Amino acid sequence: MLNRVRSAVAHLVSSGGAPPSRPKSPDLPNATSAPPAAPPQAPRSPPARAGSGGAAPARTVEARASFSRPTFLQLSPGGLRRADDHAGRAVQSPPDTGRRLPWSTGYAEVINAGKSRHNEDQACCEVVYVEGRRSVSGAPREPSRGQGLCFYYWGLFDGHAGGGAAEMASRLLHRHIREQLKDLVEILQDPLPPPLCLPSTPGAPGSSDSSQLVGPQSCWSSQKEVTHESLVVGAIENAFQLMDGQMARERRGQQVEGGCCALVVVYLLGKVYVANAGDSRAIIVRNGEVIPMSREFTPETERQRLQLLGFLKPELLGGEFTHLEFPRRVQPKELGQRMLYRDQNMTGWAYKKIELEDLRFPLVCGEGKKARVMATIGVTRGLGDHNLRVCSSTLPIKPFLSCFPEVRVYDLTQYEHCPDDVLVLGTDGLWDVTSDCEVAATVDRVLSAYEPNDPSRYTALAQALVLGARGTPRDRGWRLPNNKLGSGDDISVFVIPLGGPGSYS
Amino acid sequence: MLNRVRSAVAHLVSSGGAPPSRPKSPDLPNATSAPPAAPPQAPRSPPARAGSGGAAPARTVEARASFSRPTFLQLSPGGLRRADDHAGRAVQSPPDTGRRLPWSTGYAEVINAGKSRHNEDQACCEVVYVEGRRSVSGAPREPSRGQGLCFYYWGLFDGHAGGGAAEMASRLLHRHIREQLKDLVEILQDPLPPPLCLPSTPGAPGSSDSSQLVGPQSCWSSQKEVTHESLVVGAIENAFQLMDGQMARERRGQQVEGGCCALVVVYLLGKVYVANAGDSRAIIVRNGEVIPMSREFTPETERQRLQLLGFLKPELLGGEFTHLEFPRRVQPKELGQRMLYRDQNMTGWAYKKIELEDLRFPLVCGEGKKARVMATIGVTRGLGDHNLRVCSSTLPIKPFLSCFPEVRVYDLTQYEHCPDDVLVLGTDGLWDVTSDCEVAATVDRVLSAYEPNDPSRYTALAQALVLGARGTPRDRGWRLPNNKLGSGDDISVFVIPLGGPGSYS
Repeated sequence: MLNRVRSAVAHLVSSGGAPPSRPKSPDLPNATSAPPAAPPQAPRSPPARAGSGGAAPARTVEARASFSRPTFLQLSPGGLRRADDHAGRAVQSPPDTGRRLPWSTGYAEVINAGKSRHNEDQACCEVVYVEGRRSVSGAPREPSRGQGLCFYYWGLFDGHAGGGAAEMASRLLHRHIREQLKDLVEILQDPLPPPLCLPSTPGAPGSSDSSQLVGPQSCWSSQKEVTHESLVVGAIENAFQLMDGQMARERRGQQVEGGCCALVVVYLLGKVYVANAGDSRAIIVRNGEVIPMSREFTPETERQRLQLLGFLKPELLGGEFTHLEFPRRVQPKELGQRMLYRDQNMTGWAYKKIELEDLRFPLVCGEGKKARVMATIGVTRGLGDHNLRVCSSTLPIKPFLSCFPEVRVYDLTQYEHCPDDVLVLGTDGLWDVTSDCEVAATVDRVLSAYEPNDPSRYTALAQALVLGARGTPRDRGWRLPNNKLGSGDDISVFVIPLGGPGSYS
Repeated sequence: MLNRVRSAVAHLVSSGGAPPSRPKSPDLPNATSAPPAAPPQAPRSPPARAGSGGAAPARTVEARASFSRPTFLQLSPGGLRRADDHAGRAVQSPPDTGRRLPWSTGYAEVINAGKSRHNEDQACCEVVYVEGRRSVSGAPREPSRGQGLCFYYWGLFDGHAGGGAAEMASRLLHRHIREQLKDLVEILQDPLPPPLCLPSTPGAPGSSDSSQLVGPQSCWSSQKEVTHESLVVGAIENAFQLMDGQMARERRGQQVEGGCCALVVVYLLGKVYVANAGDSRAIIVRNGEVIPMSREFTPETERQRLQLLGFLKPELLGGEFTHLEFPRRVQPKELGQRMLYRDQNMTGWAYKKIELEDLRFPLVCGEGKKARVMATIGVTRGLGDHNLRVCSSTLPIKPFLSCFPEVRVYDLTQYEHCPDDVLVLGTDGLWDVTSDCEVAATVDRVLSAYEPNDPSRYTALAQALVLGARGTPRDRGWRLPNNKLGSGDDISVFVIPLGGPGSYS
């Protein structure tokens, strides 16, 4: 079975090939907010709709076989079974023997406590070589510039409503990034500012007569300056969009189920690019200090964007939802009374007289982990979700979900890093029960117990972080030392050392 | 004439009454960016359209008479003439004799160097008493809660395309705020959380049977907590919207010309609320340290909001503009080539193949002070502008302009302020040539030259700031000591002491 799983993961489809089908899994964490008092019957979590499995996944051997974990875990068939065991929740890491992850990156993961059938997180860690297309100027490539570029890549993908989107993203997103960077190989290695205009796509009709780049010097004096860094940011942004588009196309073949949050790190030419779409999180811990490298995209943090879209495109609300926010559901008996509300332009609250259409369910409702868009989903950015609909309705939710990441850039060359400086990536399973400062404290505690040049220290740290968020089984639950509940979610953590492994170029 | 001007300013219209008509003035600062190479013929500054004056204002005696400056300047007819003199550019402040502004607030202003006929900045400083409506619960008011509320109010309004909007806002915006606060008088003085639901408007049909507030205790457990502070923020936000709506209604009577940026400070119950819509700026200088209290809203800072609106509502672009951003205007000969661009979801840049519709003029173009929406206007939030259209076109610009402010809150009680701690408000005439740090240095230099209890020190500081931004006439221009050009714009500055005058309640 190992071979079958491995080959499923290794089946790298860069241009639309079909990954192996896998079962639906019932999906988002159960919301505990009260159900709406009136139509629409808002679901607490989105149903898995695509495919033939329906709501209750068939626990067949075939379905089981298509379950996969990251190849770098090198799991044996028995190891895969243990990784898939909700009762034991054994923490998984790459084996100590054999090839380490690039930069001696640490990784650990654990499956959820039963909220979905499999671990819906996925992870990827790769060194990716980008071969430039033939010289963008159309001229034969100069030998000195003929070299491609390497980037280091880490990705965490937290799936919901099924594991398909996360699995697909973990296989393909870095390939989309590579594709976007191909045109930039020469430009990024040229100290001159990027040309504003290039001849048409090499090889395309009409491109052969364009023998020269249209450089900045030929342009208006009022042109904007565009940096190399912003080209990499744009490449990552467009790669996310293309990945999402591929999922939209392939869902028709029922290959892609659900959606996923995506948190991605690209190291290229001295800079670390952290791209986040969803509620995973990245922080740098440097000299004990926390530097946030992402923010979460949820119905609460994106309330105004969502409301604006509902206001400008009321047809997306299907007559079932109101774009206004209320502190709680409005009840029919409150018609004519005045209730607190927020419109899309407001950060404060005011009173408004309740009218009939205010009785519709609010587009955005709930707080914290219970916040939902259209009473259905608790994250507002990510990949996939093209099949996601409001329960008991045909209303699609996707227009409100954005696939675009926010990209933050950290210049590794601007600071001398020591072996204890790390970039920590975690899915929400980690951050739901662990603060930034607690992570920083664990970084200090664990790394100081190892020699600075011991490459296993980062895996030990990732394991400690996962264990600390999972807790131990006690009193009919997974509990932390302070007796609070540990995370019952899938938990995945990368620990990327910033100063240890020497030269990264 | 003084009486006429004074009565014009004192003519406080709280519910739609008509202010005296005034002449159009040619308007926004001249943009110096190159004109577009192809249709639409984009204007450098919006034409004054409302009213019968046309593009060239008639310099009649009547028009002149309706020019006004803030009443608190107590200008004599001669003083008004000097304040209106572009050649002398005398700095104006309230007289040393007579009643001071509340909190001994300092104020100074100077007219522009000729870019518009009159000073299009306006200012207002008031103590406003808010009488509560009869008890919101519908029950007779308890004597102990029968007291109203006072708020302190400062407003700077930087007009463009005419002085009408700024003048109207300076007369009326605080009245709209008062109106919004009337319902909150009891609630804000009650230590309990605000009720989520109130009976219908007192006196309105059907309200008499609602004898009780629907307090939080009766609501679902998942209701949001709404703070008193957020009610004040909501009141200010809605007041801006209602002010803008009044301008929209009254423009038909040709009473309101142009638009204005609005920067407003409300002090209420221990907290300072700074609301900004436009490119004015507020900073606190506390113990020499700068605390930004606003941000500017320009085509650059609001690029993504503008592009998103153009993308979602392409009809607003009238087939003349593209929502995509390019580093410079695309030329017809570049069709089929690939040029750098940014879409509404992107912060980075990428290359795209130029198609026919990319030859349209970009919705957002230019950089810094030359940035423009629809090649017309350089600010993206404010009041008015309901008549503003793209030059040589009927395309309205207003849908892209937002009247909603961003409100920041500063809790005065959280820090012990000394007499040198001040809140500085300035129109862009100040900030175009003066950095936050330079303002902080001037605060230190000027205030230390006066006794801490000398109430004239804040006016002296405001004057120093205005003079420092205006410069002195030399080499055919107004120049700063470093020989750079001073600001040729209208300049207006409030200096609000945070720790001097003692109790503010």
